Amino acid sequence: MAEVTMTRRSRITPEREAELYDAVLDLLREVGYDGLTMDAVAARTRSSKATLYRQWGSKPRLVVEALRIQKSEGFDVIDTGTLRGDFHAMIDRGDDCQMEQDSALIRGMATAVHADPDLLRVFRERIIEPELAELDMVVQRAVARGEVRADNPAVDYVLHMMLGAFVARTLIDDRPPNQAYLRDYIDAVILPALDV
Amino acid sequence: MAEVTMTRRSRITPEREAELYDAVLDLLREVGYDGLTMDAVAARTRSSKATLYRQWGSKPRLVVEALRIQKSEGFDVIDTGTLRGDFHAMIDRGDDCQMEQDSALIRGMATAVHADPDLLRVFRERIIEPELAELDMVVQRAVARGEVRADNPAVDYVLHMMLGAFVARTLIDDRPPNQAYLRDYIDAVILPALDV
Repeated sequence: MAEVTMTRRSRITPEREAELYDAVLDLLREVGYDGLTMDAVAARTRSSKATLYRQWGSKPRLVVEALRIQKSEGFDVIDTGTLRGDFHAMIDRGDDCQMEQDSALIRGMATAVHADPDLLRVFRERIIEPELAELDMVVQRAVARGEVRADNPAVDYVLHMMLGAFVARTLIDDRPPNQAYLRDYIDAVILPALDV
Repeated sequence: MAEVTMTRRSRITPEREAELYDAVLDLLREVGYDGLTMDAVAARTRSSKATLYRQWGSKPRLVVEALRIQKSEGFDVIDTGTLRGDFHAMIDRGDDCQMEQDSALIRGMATAVHADPDLLRVFRERIIEPELAELDMVVQRAVARGEVRADNPAVDYVLHMMLGAFVARTLIDDRPPNQAYLRDYIDAVILPALDV
C-alpha cells in the first residue's frame, strides 16, 4: 500500500506538493473545512481537479495530509514542568479561529471516515496517533514527577476527554470551542479526573 | 411558528403519526441512522414520500420527532440513592445495539444541524434540553445528599463529559461506544471529576 502511494505521489515534485498543502491550509483558514472545495484548491494552485483527485482521491484525504504536514512542522515540544501548564500550553498553541476550523474538521471527518474505512485508517495514523503520542508523553512526565498516579484509570482517557470537550461544545452549547472554554474544561474536568 | 407546525401536522391523525414514529424507530434499530432513507419509511408505512416531506421536511427532523416520542415514553425516573447508581442506571436503560444507533445518530445530527439552524433548534429543544434536565435532576439530588459540592465546576459539564465520551470512542478507538465502556468512563472520569 505504501509503495503504491509513493508511486502515485511521485508524479508531482515535493516543492509542488508543499505549495498545494500550503494552499489547502490557507483555504481552511479562510473558509473552514465545510466551505473548502476541490474547485477552490484547483483554482488557488492553478492545477486541475483531475490532478488533485489522482493524487489524493478526495477532499478529506487531501486535508488530512495537509494537516499532518502542518502538525509535524508546528510541533514544539511542550514541557512547562507541570501537567496543568503543559495542557494549557497545548491549548494556547493555536488560537480561537484555528479551533473553530478544527471543530468543523472533526465534524466533517466524523462523517467522512464512517463512509470510508481507508480514510479512517489514514486519519488515525496521521492525526489521532500523533495526538495520542504527544498527550501520552505529557502525562507520562507527570507520572514520573509524581503528579499523577500511574494506575489512575483516567490516564487512558485523556484524549477522549479533550476531543469530547471539543465536540460536545458545538452540539450542547451551539458555539465552537474556544481557548477560554477548553482551559476551563481542563481545570474543571480533566485535571480533577487525573487527581491533580 | 408553533401554530404553523400545528396546522401542518393536523393533516394526519395522532394514531397515524404514532404509527409512523414507530416505523422510524424500527428502521433505526434495523439499519441505523445512516442507512435510514425516506424511501424506506414511505414503503414501511405505505405512505408517499411527498406526505413525509410535507409533514416533517427532512429525514433528520422526522428522526428527531420520533426519538422525542420514544424518550418521553421510555422515561423512567431513576433514583437509586447514589450518583454512581443513577449514572449506571441511565446507561443500563438502553442496550449496546441502541448505543450504536445513538452514536450514528449523533454523528449524522452533528453534520445535519450545522447546515440547518432551524433543525439545530429542534434538536436542542427535543433531545439536548430534556437530557440536560434529567442529568441536572440526578446531579442536584447528589448535591442535596451531600455527595457533590454545589460549587464543583464539573457540575456544569456533566452532559459534555457524557456526550464527549460517546463521540470520542468512535473517532479514537474506531468502535461504537458500548455499556461496558461508558460505565468505565463514568467511574474513571465523570465521578472523579465531580469528586465522588
